[in-house]
Amino acid sequence: MDREHYSKQYDEELKAIRSRLLEMGGKVEFMLGDAMRSLVERDSELAEITIAFDHTINALEMEIDGRCLEVLALRQPAARDLRFITLALKIVTDLERIGDQCANIAKRAVELNREPVLKPYIDLPRMSAWSGNMVTEALDAFVRGDAELAIKVCKDDTFVDDLNEQIQRELLTFMNEDPRTISRAIKITYISKCLERIADHATNIAEMVIFMVKGKDIRHTIA
Amino acid sequence: MDREHYSKQYDEELKAIRSRLLEMGGKVEFMLGDAMRSLVERDSELAEITIAFDHTINALEMEIDGRCLEVLALRQPAARDLRFITLALKIVTDLERIGDQCANIAKRAVELNREPVLKPYIDLPRMSAWSGNMVTEALDAFVRGDAELAIKVCKDDTFVDDLNEQIQRELLTFMNEDPRTISRAIKITYISKCLERIADHATNIAEMVIFMVKGKDIRHTIA
Repeated sequence: MDREHYSKQYDEELKAIRSRLLEMGGKVEFMLGDAMRSLVERDSELAEITIAFDHTINALEMEIDGRCLEVLALRQPAARDLRFITLALKIVTDLERIGDQCANIAKRAVELNREPVLKPYIDLPRMSAWSGNMVTEALDAFVRGDAELAIKVCKDDTFVDDLNEQIQRELLTFMNEDPRTISRAIKITYISKCLERIADHATNIAEMVIFMVKGKDIRHTIA
Repeated sequence: MDREHYSKQYDEELKAIRSRLLEMGGKVEFMLGDAMRSLVERDSELAEITIAFDHTINALEMEIDGRCLEVLALRQPAARDLRFITLALKIVTDLERIGDQCANIAKRAVELNREPVLKPYIDLPRMSAWSGNMVTEALDAFVRGDAELAIKVCKDDTFVDDLNEQIQRELLTFMNEDPRTISRAIKITYISKCLERIADHATNIAEMVIFMVKGKDIRHTIA
C-alpha cells in the first residue's frame, strides 16, 4: 500500500469517527425529544420505545470506542489527531450517559402518566430545549474545533441551572400547599435534575473542546 | 538511549499513571469521608474545606490526562498498554466527577447544618461507606486487571440503588406527615442521589475494567 493511499484511508477513519459521533449526538437529541414528548403528551407507549432505544445508544458507544482504539493502535496518531481521538473517547462516554438520562426521564414519564396531571409542563420543555441545544452545540464545537461556541455552551449551563432551581422552588411550594402532590412533584423534580445533568454533560464536552483547541486546560476555571 | 533504558523508562511512565490514579482515588475517598462527616457531625467548617479540596482533584485530573497523552504520543503503546491508557483517560473523568459529587454533598451539608436536625443520619453513612468501597474496589480491579472484583462492584450497585430508593420513600413519609420538613428532606434526598451517582461512577469504572480484561464489551449487559 503506497503512502498516499495509506494516508487517505487514515483520513477516512478519522472522518468516520467524527461522523459516527455526530450521528450518536443526533440520536441522543432525538431520544431526548421523544422522552419529553412522552411526558408532555402523556404517551407511555412512546416512553417505552424511548427506554428501549437506549440499547442503540449503548451499541454506538461500543462501536465508536472500538474505532478509536483501532486508530490508536494501527495509525499511531500524533498531536492534533491524538487529541481528537482521546477526546472522542471521552465524549462518547458523555453521550452514552445522556442516553441514560433520557431513559430515566421516560421511566418517570410512565409513572407520572398513570396519575392526574399536577400542572401543565411549561418550564421542563424549555429546559429540555436548552439542554438539547447545548449537546448539539458542544458536538458542533468539537467537530469544528470552535472554542468560542464551546465557551457559549459553558455559559448557557448557568441558565439551565437557574431553571432547575426555579422548578425545584416552585414544586416545593406545591408540596407545601398540598401534601397530596408530593409524590408527583418529586418525580417532576427528578426529571428536572435529569435535564440538568444532560446540560452538565454538554458542558463537560464543551470544556474538553476548549482544552483541545486552546491546547491548555481551562476546565474548572470557567465560572 | 539504548533499548533497555527506553523500555524501562516507558514502564516507569505507565507505573506513574497507575499510581497517580490510585492516589487520586484515595483522595476522592478521603473527600467523601470528610463530606459525610461535615454532615453527620454538623461541621460546616469541614464542609467548606471539602468544597475547596475539589481544586486538588481537578488539578490531578489534568495532570494524569497530560501524562496519558504524552505516553500515547511518544511511546505508541500497543494492545494491553493502549487499552490501559485509554481506560485511564476515561476513569480519571469519573474520579473527577465523583469529586464534584462530594463537593455537592458538602454544599448541602452547609445548608442543612443551619437548620434543626430532621433525624439522625443512619442510612446515608451506610450508603456512603458502600459507595466509597465500590470506588476503591473498582480502582483495585483496574490496577490488578481483576474482572471478578469488577463484577462484584457492578453487583454491589444494586444495594446502593435499593438504599437510595428506601431513603427516598422514608423521606417522602416525613414530608407527607409534616410539610415543615419538606425543605430539609429534599436536601437529604439530594445527598442520597449524590451518593447513588458516586456508586454509578464506580460501576462505570468497573464495567470498563471488565471490558479491558475480557477484551470484549459486557458493558450494558450486566443487570
